[in-house]
Amino acid sequence: MKKLIILGSTGSIGSQTLDVVRSLKEEFEVVGLTGYRNIPLLLRQIKEFMPKIVVVKDEEKARELKDNIGSNVEILTGKEGLKEIVRYEADMVVVALEGIAGLVPTVEAIKQGKSIALATKEVLVTAGEIVMNLVKEKKIEFLPIDSEHSAILQCLRGNKEKDVSSLILTASGGPFRGKKKEELKNVTVEEALRHPNWKMGKKITIDSATLMNKGFEVIEARWFFDIPLDKIRVVVHPQSIIHSMVEYVDGSVIAQLSVPDMRIAIQYALNYPNRRYVEGVNFLDFYSLGQLTFERPDFETFKCLSLAYHAAKLGGTMPTVLNAADEVAVSLFLQNKISFLEISEIIEEALSHHKNMQNPTLDDIISVDLETRERIMKKYMR
Amino acid sequence: MKKLIILGSTGSIGSQTLDVVRSLKEEFEVVGLTGYRNIPLLLRQIKEFMPKIVVVKDEEKARELKDNIGSNVEILTGKEGLKEIVRYEADMVVVALEGIAGLVPTVEAIKQGKSIALATKEVLVTAGEIVMNLVKEKKIEFLPIDSEHSAILQCLRGNKEKDVSSLILTASGGPFRGKKKEELKNVTVEEALRHPNWKMGKKITIDSATLMNKGFEVIEARWFFDIPLDKIRVVVHPQSIIHSMVEYVDGSVIAQLSVPDMRIAIQYALNYPNRRYVEGVNFLDFYSLGQLTFERPDFETFKCLSLAYHAAKLGGTMPTVLNAADEVAVSLFLQNKISFLEISEIIEEALSHHKNMQNPTLDDIISVDLETRERIMKKYMR
Repeated sequence: MKKLIILGSTGSIGSQTLDVVRSLKEEFEVVGLTGYRNIPLLLRQIKEFMPKIVVVKDEEKARELKDNIGSNVEILTGKEGLKEIVRYEADMVVVALEGIAGLVPTVEAIKQGKSIALATKEVLVTAGEIVMNLVKEKKIEFLPIDSEHSAILQCLRGNKEKDVSSLILTASGGPFRGKKKEELKNVTVEEALRHPNWKMGKKITIDSATLMNKGFEVIEARWFFDIPLDKIRVVVHPQSIIHSMVEYVDGSVIAQLSVPDMRIAIQYALNYPNRRYVEGVNFLDFYSLGQLTFERPDFETFKCLSLAYHAAKLGGTMPTVLNAADEVAVSLFLQNKISFLEISEIIEEALSHHKNMQNPTLDDIISVDLETRERIMKKYMR
Repeated sequence: MKKLIILGSTGSIGSQTLDVVRSLKEEFEVVGLTGYRNIPLLLRQIKEFMPKIVVVKDEEKARELKDNIGSNVEILTGKEGLKEIVRYEADMVVVALEGIAGLVPTVEAIKQGKSIALATKEVLVTAGEIVMNLVKEKKIEFLPIDSEHSAILQCLRGNKEKDVSSLILTASGGPFRGKKKEELKNVTVEEALRHPNWKMGKKITIDSATLMNKGFEVIEARWFFDIPLDKIRVVVHPQSIIHSMVEYVDGSVIAQLSVPDMRIAIQYALNYPNRRYVEGVNFLDFYSLGQLTFERPDFETFKCLSLAYHAAKLGGTMPTVLNAADEVAVSLFLQNKISFLEISEIIEEALSHHKNMQNPTLDDIISVDLETRERIMKKYMR
């Protein structure tokens, strides 16, 4: 039995991780769960999976929980709680927290020698070098929960690093694929939230519409697979059937295909190097697939993708600024405070304003993140 | 330096194998070559690659050769020569002979402990069980030179046998894809030779038009990858970009893609487990690919594919009859002696006439092959 701690269990990836556990009961034991605000859902999860320890946002939420569960469950709160829970005895920590909040607990979990299944993009986007150095030092298993990175990991399987020519990340292109800048001027939040293939949280859905999500994935891939940025390419593939590919020096391309279902990537990380069927997952039916097509990404219209490559090339704290500015900008857009095109403008301005710092510490990253947010907020929250 | 013996060096695969060697000069030394009738080409190959030993069809061809090369090249002839050459000191034998002629030399090469790169389908189609048992016994490397099986080998890389759900062989569908039986009544040899994607020998091109080639590949795959027949599926993929796939139990499908160029599969077998770039091979350009599509194979119209599954299920000497009958029937068709649809009729009749023999020896297989040929020839060569 593999003992799991799931950080962010009430979110989309967290809930689907519990779907996987439910389907593979004999393999996994849930020892820890964390929720933020959604106490009713966390409560149901606690009753079903009986963890020994949980973390919630604050004392108020803790009290709400305490009244409804037995005293055999330890309840912790806030950031300290997240740092504490990963020290609990377990084999693997699933990091599915939202945003940069995932960074410190992930670092702590690695220090504790736990295997990591990582869904929170911000961890590698902001602190890729620090985290991967620690992963190497601690020799822990560090696995992606992301359909693209899971696909690449699968396509690299058994192959030699020296034979890799490039990583090809596929992108659905989002709801605005094919549109020009002019046409995106007045798009609504509702339109931007209509992702053609994946059902995901709001933030990541907007990031898919701007292609920033793909930009983050490029940066993630760079660290996950220790490969130079210029060997990571993006290909738009609107059907989201091929989840990513690896091109080899001999001209062969290995691709991973499946129905768009995050539970496949989740089980792959949880069971690695084994593969297990999760109840409810559909197999690909090639006869009803229709066609698979590929397009060049439009770096002009989807400026966020260019900005991500740009920030990644500069390195240092630039990707942290990229991430923080994007998070605030997307939030402003979701609140109808800025237009869709202003998202990339805000990020671009934040990057050009930032004085880059190479080899930042974790604390540097956290303060740059905070400063960036505050600066943008101050400007737009009037 | 890997020492190579190339059986059938003047054929399509043989010549392309030499292209690979030419591009990777520092890796390979050609110690043996065999040609059948095309002495001028063999002569050029000998002058370029300077093998120590060659085999030709007969004494007459040997004399023709002797007059043109130095006495430092040993010349052997016929079947005995093919059996002899594989005993020569070498690391790998590339089997690219036409038809069942490849069987005995392959078995001999395995017995000699040589690595095998196999292009000759008939070896596993007729004697899969014998050959694979010998491969296991001798613990030799046994690699496919066939875009489909090379693709599957690549898609299996690093994965566990228990996690494989099925092998998916892709088929271009040939020049008559989408046609119904009625429309194939009067097709000409010229029409049948027009393969949409691959430039190959005549026999295999006709086998692609009838889908018998895919049938043979199903039988080959069964033995190559030691997998039950009912876990091998065929999907028509007209663009010949995905060369085959492996479906796993978790719902993931791993696919291998490349431009249709046999040199990719050849170098993969020659360099395994490494990958090397061969001069002249193009990389896939996803932006100019257009669409990839998939269809259900039409087992009704392309009867040969059904017959192959049928013969494979029965096992024993049935696949030998399938292969022999097909070889004669295709040859009769190429000589305009029978119609396109009669190819499958002849094979079907041969299978239903044959009294199956389980666990045949190599000699049994060779006599069943001969008997089947003679019987059909007698009927049609009047």
